[in-house]
Amino acid sequence: MQLSCPMPKLDFDTITLGHGGGGTLTNKLLESGVFNLLSNDLLDEHHDGAVFSLDGPTAFTTDSFVISPIFFPGGDIGELAINGTVNDLAMCGAKPKYLSLSFIIEEGLLMKDFWKVLVSIKAACEAAEVQVVTGDTKVVERGKGDQIFINTTGIGSILPKAKISMNRVKEGDVVIVSDVIASHGISIMSVREGLEFESDILSDTRPLNHIVEEMISKFGESIHLLKDPTRGGIAAVLNEIARDSQQGIYLDEKKIPINEQVKGACEILGLDPLYVANEGIYIAIVDASDAEDIINHLKSNPNSANASAIGKIVKDHPRQVIIRSGIGGKRVVNMLVGEQLPRIC
Amino acid sequence: MQLSCPMPKLDFDTITLGHGGGGTLTNKLLESGVFNLLSNDLLDEHHDGAVFSLDGPTAFTTDSFVISPIFFPGGDIGELAINGTVNDLAMCGAKPKYLSLSFIIEEGLLMKDFWKVLVSIKAACEAAEVQVVTGDTKVVERGKGDQIFINTTGIGSILPKAKISMNRVKEGDVVIVSDVIASHGISIMSVREGLEFESDILSDTRPLNHIVEEMISKFGESIHLLKDPTRGGIAAVLNEIARDSQQGIYLDEKKIPINEQVKGACEILGLDPLYVANEGIYIAIVDASDAEDIINHLKSNPNSANASAIGKIVKDHPRQVIIRSGIGGKRVVNMLVGEQLPRIC
Repeated sequence: MQLSCPMPKLDFDTITLGHGGGGTLTNKLLESGVFNLLSNDLLDEHHDGAVFSLDGPTAFTTDSFVISPIFFPGGDIGELAINGTVNDLAMCGAKPKYLSLSFIIEEGLLMKDFWKVLVSIKAACEAAEVQVVTGDTKVVERGKGDQIFINTTGIGSILPKAKISMNRVKEGDVVIVSDVIASHGISIMSVREGLEFESDILSDTRPLNHIVEEMISKFGESIHLLKDPTRGGIAAVLNEIARDSQQGIYLDEKKIPINEQVKGACEILGLDPLYVANEGIYIAIVDASDAEDIINHLKSNPNSANASAIGKIVKDHPRQVIIRSGIGGKRVVNMLVGEQLPRIC
Repeated sequence: MQLSCPMPKLDFDTITLGHGGGGTLTNKLLESGVFNLLSNDLLDEHHDGAVFSLDGPTAFTTDSFVISPIFFPGGDIGELAINGTVNDLAMCGAKPKYLSLSFIIEEGLLMKDFWKVLVSIKAACEAAEVQVVTGDTKVVERGKGDQIFINTTGIGSILPKAKISMNRVKEGDVVIVSDVIASHGISIMSVREGLEFESDILSDTRPLNHIVEEMISKFGESIHLLKDPTRGGIAAVLNEIARDSQQGIYLDEKKIPINEQVKGACEILGLDPLYVANEGIYIAIVDASDAEDIINHLKSNPNSANASAIGKIVKDHPRQVIIRSGIGGKRVVNMLVGEQLPRIC
C-alpha cells in the first residue's frame, strides 16, 4: 500500500519531548501534519472527542501495537495498527467505521519516519474505508520507549446478517482458514535475524473487512464464528475456541495452506508454523452444509485465494485440538506457554 | 479511592515477555486477575471485541497515559487513565459508558504493582460508573518502555440537554474554572524533585462526569463549551478556545482559585500555575445570565467547591488571552512552546 504525500516543512528533524507537551509544538505538529493528512469532518472538529450518531448493535475493540522493527517487509506499524483493529471488528461480524489513534513516541524518532507511518495509516484507512476521528500524542524520553507505539480503538456496526457467537460452534462444523499461514511472523523474524531467503517473505497484513462483509452477506448465519490468528498463531486461536466452546477440534495438517518459502523458513528457524503470528487471515467456523460453497467463494478473491477446510469440530476430545500430521500420526496441539517471537504486533 | 482486593496467587513475581505472547501465560494472567477484577457481562464474553447497542449521538475519545512516577500523591496511573477518558467524554457533554483498556508493560514490572494499578482502575470505574468492556495487553523488553503505559478509549452518550460547541462561544460569556488549579502538576513535580512541603500536595485526579451531568441537567444550553485543562494547564486550553472561537479572552488573575501551598510550590519551582497540568477541574464557557447561579451550584459540590468566574469572552483582542495581574498590569498569556513538565499524564 503506497501513497505519495510530500512531507510538510517542519522546524525539527526529530520528535522532541516538547511535541508531547500540549503546547505550541504539539499544535504545530498536528496542524501541519496529522490533521491535514487524515482530514475528515469529524477529525476536523479538533475537539477532545468526536461526536457521531450510531444506531443498533455496535462492536468496540482495542489493540496496542509495539512491533519491532516498525518497518518490515510487506508493511509497517502504521498500516498494521489500522488493519489490526479493522480486522478485530470484522471478526465480530461488524463493519468498521470509526477509529481512534494514539501515539506513544520515543524522543528522537525521525520526523521522516513518523511521516512515513502517518502516510501508511492514511493509505490503510482508505483501503479499509474507515476514518480516524480522534487521537492523542504522547512523547517519552529516549530509552523509555522504542521509536513508536500505536494504539487504535475501533467502532463498527454489526452487519445485518451476522450471527457470530462462540455458542454457535457445534459438532460437525467445518474449520476454514482463509489463506496461507505464518507469513507475518516469518517476515518479522527474517528481518530481526538478518536471514535472506530466495525472495522476500512479506507480512500478510491487510484489511479483512471487505472479504468478511461479502462472505456474511452471502452466507449469513452459516458463519458461526470468526477469529483472526495473530499472536500465538492458529494454534492459540483454535485452542481458545476449543476451550470456550467446550468442543474438540480435529485438524488435518496436509490441508493447512502454507507458502513453501515460509515452510522452509520455519524449518530453518525451528518454528512450528501453527504457532507463528498472522495478520491477514482468519479462521471461520462454518456450517458443514455450506462449507464447500464458502471455500469456493473465498478462493475467488485474491485476498483469500488459498482458503481451505483444515478440520472440523468434533465431540470426541472436548477442549482439545488434535492434528493428524502429514505422515499420519496424531498429536495434541497445545497453546504455547510463553512467547515464541516477542513484539510481533 | 481505595479498594481492598487480595491479589491472586500467580506463578510469577514480575511481568515477563511471555505474559504478552498470547499463549497460556497471557491467558492465566487475564483469567486470574484482570477479568475477575473488572468482571461485567460484556467483558465476560472474552471476545476480541465487545458488542452492545447504542442509539443516538455518541462521543468517542482516546488518551494514552505515560505518567512518571506511576504512583504519586493522590493517585496512580490506573485511576488517572480511567478519569482522564471519563473526563474527556464529560467535556463533550456525554455520559461515559464503555471504556477499552490497553496496557503496554515493560518486562520486569512487579506483579504487585500491576495488581495495585488494576485495583485502582476498578475503583475508578466504580466511582465514575463506567465499564471496561474490552482490552489488550502487550509486553516490551526491559529498557523499551517504562513500567506501564495505559491507553483508555471511551464511548459515551451525549446528554439530552447538552449543547456543547466551539461555535457557541460568544462575546460576554463568562469563563468559569470549576476548582483550584495546578494541583496535579505540582504533586508530580514534588515527587520527582524530592521536594517536601508542609503537607502533601495531592493530585486532583477525579471523575468529572457526575458534576458535569448535574450542571447540564440544570443549566442545559447555557453551558456553551467545556474543556479540561490537562497538559499545558489553563493557559493552553484558553488559548485553544480563543484561537478556535476567534474570540478574545480576558482573565482576572485575582479570581483564579489556587491552593496556597500549590502557589508557594510554584514560586519555589519557578513555574507559572497557569501552565501547570490539572486532572480534576474544567473550564466552562457559560451564558452570562446564568453564570452566578452556575457558580453557586458548583460551589455546593465538594468536587467544585472553589468554582470561580475567572474572566470573560471579549471582542477586543480576538484569538488572544490577556490577563490582568494581581497588581493591576496586563499581559498576554501565550501558549507554551514546548514542555513544562514531561510525562505529566
